[in-house]
Amino acid sequence: MSANTPTHPSLDQPVTPFAALDSDKVEANIARLRGHLAGLNATLRPHVKTAKSVEVARLLFDGHAGPITVSTLAEAEAFAGAGFTDIVYAVGITPDKLDRVVALHRRGVDVAVLLDSLAQAEFVAEAARTSGIRLPALIEVDCDGHRGGVPPGDPVAVRIARALAGGGAEARGVLTHAGESYFADGPGALAAAAENERRCALRVARTLRADGHDAPVVSVGSTPTAHFAADLTGVTEVRAGNFVFFDLVMAGIGVCRIGDLALSVVTTVIGHRPDKGWILTDGGWMAMSRDRGTARQRVDQGYGLVADLAGVPFDDLLMTDASQEHGILAIRPGSRAALPDLPIGTRVRILPNHACATAAQHERYHVVGSGSPVVRAVWQRVRGW
Amino acid sequence: MSANTPTHPSLDQPVTPFAALDSDKVEANIARLRGHLAGLNATLRPHVKTAKSVEVARLLFDGHAGPITVSTLAEAEAFAGAGFTDIVYAVGITPDKLDRVVALHRRGVDVAVLLDSLAQAEFVAEAARTSGIRLPALIEVDCDGHRGGVPPGDPVAVRIARALAGGGAEARGVLTHAGESYFADGPGALAAAAENERRCALRVARTLRADGHDAPVVSVGSTPTAHFAADLTGVTEVRAGNFVFFDLVMAGIGVCRIGDLALSVVTTVIGHRPDKGWILTDGGWMAMSRDRGTARQRVDQGYGLVADLAGVPFDDLLMTDASQEHGILAIRPGSRAALPDLPIGTRVRILPNHACATAAQHERYHVVGSGSPVVRAVWQRVRGW
Repeated sequence: MSANTPTHPSLDQPVTPFAALDSDKVEANIARLRGHLAGLNATLRPHVKTAKSVEVARLLFDGHAGPITVSTLAEAEAFAGAGFTDIVYAVGITPDKLDRVVALHRRGVDVAVLLDSLAQAEFVAEAARTSGIRLPALIEVDCDGHRGGVPPGDPVAVRIARALAGGGAEARGVLTHAGESYFADGPGALAAAAENERRCALRVARTLRADGHDAPVVSVGSTPTAHFAADLTGVTEVRAGNFVFFDLVMAGIGVCRIGDLALSVVTTVIGHRPDKGWILTDGGWMAMSRDRGTARQRVDQGYGLVADLAGVPFDDLLMTDASQEHGILAIRPGSRAALPDLPIGTRVRILPNHACATAAQHERYHVVGSGSPVVRAVWQRVRGW
Repeated sequence: MSANTPTHPSLDQPVTPFAALDSDKVEANIARLRGHLAGLNATLRPHVKTAKSVEVARLLFDGHAGPITVSTLAEAEAFAGAGFTDIVYAVGITPDKLDRVVALHRRGVDVAVLLDSLAQAEFVAEAARTSGIRLPALIEVDCDGHRGGVPPGDPVAVRIARALAGGGAEARGVLTHAGESYFADGPGALAAAAENERRCALRVARTLRADGHDAPVVSVGSTPTAHFAADLTGVTEVRAGNFVFFDLVMAGIGVCRIGDLALSVVTTVIGHRPDKGWILTDGGWMAMSRDRGTARQRVDQGYGLVADLAGVPFDDLLMTDASQEHGILAIRPGSRAALPDLPIGTRVRILPNHACATAAQHERYHVVGSGSPVVRAVWQRVRGW
């Protein structure tokens, strides 16, 4: 039997907790972003770190293997094995990881690495010299102070490009990520973050080109900015990852609606505490992750919104607390909604704060269509580093 | 080559991030709790949910297979395969899980299930009738309002025991867990939580015995209360899990010292932002988990305390923020300590907030001794449900 053949034909059957994925919503989320970017003449290089699934990546490219972004070399290797040959590894490179990058190039897989320092440029150049491969590297640009990157205007960018080129590596261009856009709120702030991403990346790319480097790639992106960019002139590719699933954090800043959320965790009711207004389940933080991203948003969704097995949210029912393998469901504080009658053994679906973190707690997805508990397939995730 | 043979002889070599485990500290932590409980004539039934490792469980019993507690049936099955035949499954039972419990009994593995409702007693009794196995069940007692359980004094406990016995199942006794003790602080509060746990469990056990049930088991425990119990009269077994590794949350409430922490995550420096006082690493929340348990303690340790590769903490250096595969290290707010000079490629060890959650992000442990980077073994974890 294929690994993709479901052994359980319905969400009623696998032992809980497990991850359910609505592939109709995944396809709709992909179509929406593809449509937006087509209108801006931009290429999508999706980040596969959210789904970590070859099958989801194929949905992104109508069954083909297009350009992707990865967060680990384990992803690069797994996707290379599935035919993906155009990869950006978007975490700053370390010396000890270059042998795996070189090995991928020797298999015919183009993997661009990321760096923001002269020290990294020197060891990438050294690996290029040693391997005889013109290793491509993107210079990370800091557009909003979120984490790493060269600040626009810092002359180190040119020195990095020269060190790469001098050693036989390739200064392929620039990459930036508007990490702070996850804390933006509303269309105006999101559109401004997208335009800032574009301007910062282009400024550094122009500096490199003025110094004689081709620097053909100008890569920008995050799920919020990808959806709110109004002008991508000069940008050659847009990265986004979370949008395939979306989550409560993205809904909270207005990038999607609750109805777009494709990932949920199926859990079973194991008890009741009517004195406290609690329903207990067998899904705790091991199944949901500890991510509480909505805690700093206007509407705190606890550990998640509770829906029925068809995916329809109950009125104001949240997963309010979590132990390792226990969840507590309760009505949202301040709401007058009634606690639904969910006998022991009832299954519910929890919509997560942060799809990347919740999906990471699971080894596979049970794939369904919207409004149906029929399991179409089981898709495995890539794990580890 | 055995799965336990390290392919990398030193913590300098495996690709980061990965979990490092100091087995000298594990052994010392086990010896300390065993010594304390021996003085109280109590049996230890360790919870294997923290380490999820057969090798760690064997350290708990001098190489033998003793009584254990599990949080998933996947653990029960994996440990049964390794010779552990006396198991308590300490999450409220659901109907669909009973076939796996029955299958374990048929293999000669005694698995006691947990319940706190008449509905559960009825389907456990039904499974006992159907299978012809006297399935043992423990009645969960709520000692501190933390999550599930029968409140002491509630007559439903007796009705549950009668329903079990009437159907051919076994009312084996009571189980309670002082979940609120993780938020206690200091020896007085912890000793009081331990005594409350004992009293609540005993009260319900006596009620069951007065109704004619043997109820031989009185099971209590949590890592904090296990270490601070001063009297365990009437208690037949103590459960604790986290203590094998300990973590910053346990250090924060005074159950251990920082020097007792056995688990860490090895990460590599990938960049610097001197303008912000940041060092960036390749270990983010995927490697650490999103658990920020110390955020509600007196001393907030961020995502973890940073130590060198020998395990010695730097002065006031914390992992202050995390993306999926990025960590930010910075000096603790308010401290005058200097940011250490850690060039790109330097490896550090991050001591976690919550060992159960951090360990869950990894598939294996690289096992070392205290103060040494030499990898003694690689131990696999049990995953999934």
